[in-house]
Amino acid sequence: MQLLDGKATARSIKDEIAEEVEMMKNGGLRVPHLVAVLVGHDGGSESYVAYKIKDCEEVGFKSSLIRYEDDVEEEELLKCVNDLNNDPEVDGFIVQLPLPKHISEEKVTLAIDPAKDVDGFHPQNVGKMAMGLPAFVSATPQGIMELIKRYNIETSGKNVVVLGRSNIVGRPMSILLSLKSNPGNATVTVCHSRTKNLKEICQKADILIAALGSPNFVTAEMVKDGAVVIDVGTTRLPSDKTKSGFKLTGDVVFDEVSPKCSFITPVPGGVGPMTRASLLINTLKAAKNQM
Amino acid sequence: MQLLDGKATARSIKDEIAEEVEMMKNGGLRVPHLVAVLVGHDGGSESYVAYKIKDCEEVGFKSSLIRYEDDVEEEELLKCVNDLNNDPEVDGFIVQLPLPKHISEEKVTLAIDPAKDVDGFHPQNVGKMAMGLPAFVSATPQGIMELIKRYNIETSGKNVVVLGRSNIVGRPMSILLSLKSNPGNATVTVCHSRTKNLKEICQKADILIAALGSPNFVTAEMVKDGAVVIDVGTTRLPSDKTKSGFKLTGDVVFDEVSPKCSFITPVPGGVGPMTRASLLINTLKAAKNQM
Repeated sequence: MQLLDGKATARSIKDEIAEEVEMMKNGGLRVPHLVAVLVGHDGGSESYVAYKIKDCEEVGFKSSLIRYEDDVEEEELLKCVNDLNNDPEVDGFIVQLPLPKHISEEKVTLAIDPAKDVDGFHPQNVGKMAMGLPAFVSATPQGIMELIKRYNIETSGKNVVVLGRSNIVGRPMSILLSLKSNPGNATVTVCHSRTKNLKEICQKADILIAALGSPNFVTAEMVKDGAVVIDVGTTRLPSDKTKSGFKLTGDVVFDEVSPKCSFITPVPGGVGPMTRASLLINTLKAAKNQM
Repeated sequence: MQLLDGKATARSIKDEIAEEVEMMKNGGLRVPHLVAVLVGHDGGSESYVAYKIKDCEEVGFKSSLIRYEDDVEEEELLKCVNDLNNDPEVDGFIVQLPLPKHISEEKVTLAIDPAKDVDGFHPQNVGKMAMGLPAFVSATPQGIMELIKRYNIETSGKNVVVLGRSNIVGRPMSILLSLKSNPGNATVTVCHSRTKNLKEICQKADILIAALGSPNFVTAEMVKDGAVVIDVGTTRLPSDKTKSGFKLTGDVVFDEVSPKCSFITPVPGGVGPMTRASLLINTLKAAKNQM
């Protein structure tokens, strides 16, 4: 069994990006610029945005944070999006979700210029991805694809089972891995809450991607010997063994599943860091496209 | 075994639409207006466009045909698209594909206003469809979904196998049937040229959708007793038994497969007529959205 070390891989990606940024600077170019728009003071959103800005600093990107209070009007937020679309000094930007209830997330997402949509949430990017065209792919699926690529995991002709059909993980993963591409070319089955013969389907998987958000859902008996298991789950369960009082728990029972695997991602330190690195990859790409 | 009679179903749909158009007229509204843009004189394209215009006439839509010669410049075609986007008298329009090689189909498709994209080829419509949002779905997958709906075929929790991953049939079918919707909620596997254990996978299918374009690919041994089989293939094979000298042949060996099925589409008369009816459904929807 080999660990798919997301932490170390993300580290390498960041080093590579930092090097590219250095070269851009030396070449007299301006550095990539990411803007994060944050509405309100939700704890989760605050810390996600803080991480994103810290990551930008680490690789030498310019970053900016635009803050609005919870009661900002939709129109004002849409004006902000429009300004960012038209600002030639901004390569990519994200509007941190969720937004307050009086604001339509769909309307805001649709207002973002797809060329600056480094979150990959705009339907045009989702559609292009599904059609196998160049597109910004959202952070988690892109991070997983990068991990698969860097560990040279063969996907062509493999049976892939994706547990979960969310717009941000399960759906794009199932599409990406079945595209005529490399990684890709897999025979993909998408499972979800309505799937009836789940255990049997999982047992056939050469590659199993668990993206349900159900802690410890995947047990050893569901996994084939030699399978590749990618655990996207990150549920906070209460714990008296950690300082924070909780433990990040995956969808896979790591201790019993890992001995059967050829490769497996740990939680934490697997998909999570790759997700964070993906935003940097997308921002660099946006900057290059704009040049 | 029951036939999924696409011809009769399309007839009902047309009658329903014609009735709605009559009501619109009686209510003093203008009737839906579809414009078809045809470049060059490709035989296939000519007859497809002729069918579309005939279908419009049949249900009482207004239709217009804009023709360009093969050597039209991309810029001129894009200007035409832009004019149609801005014409309040046009509810929906299609640019018949394929286009001559010097014109970028991607650029033309992207130029179409997604709200008038009744072919459902714009990435924004593909993306919205994949995200489970209201969208124009392209004609063949929408026709199949309509057929499934009107025959009350249960899809929830069923094992669906889609043979083919094309952007216009296999991919959207696999997405639509696994969405949290009705029809939908199926456990879907997408197979293609790289799939290794195809026969075994097909044998597990409660619903098998063959969209490979390989005549007579699906044989009886690949099909489970009681399965629903939807044959999207329409290959013209030479024949000395027909006046035209060819015979439209599906991906399924109908004679040996049909006795095992609960439902099956014939070729011709199955998916084909539903595909044609879908463009009318989309045009009516576009007209209603615009009102």
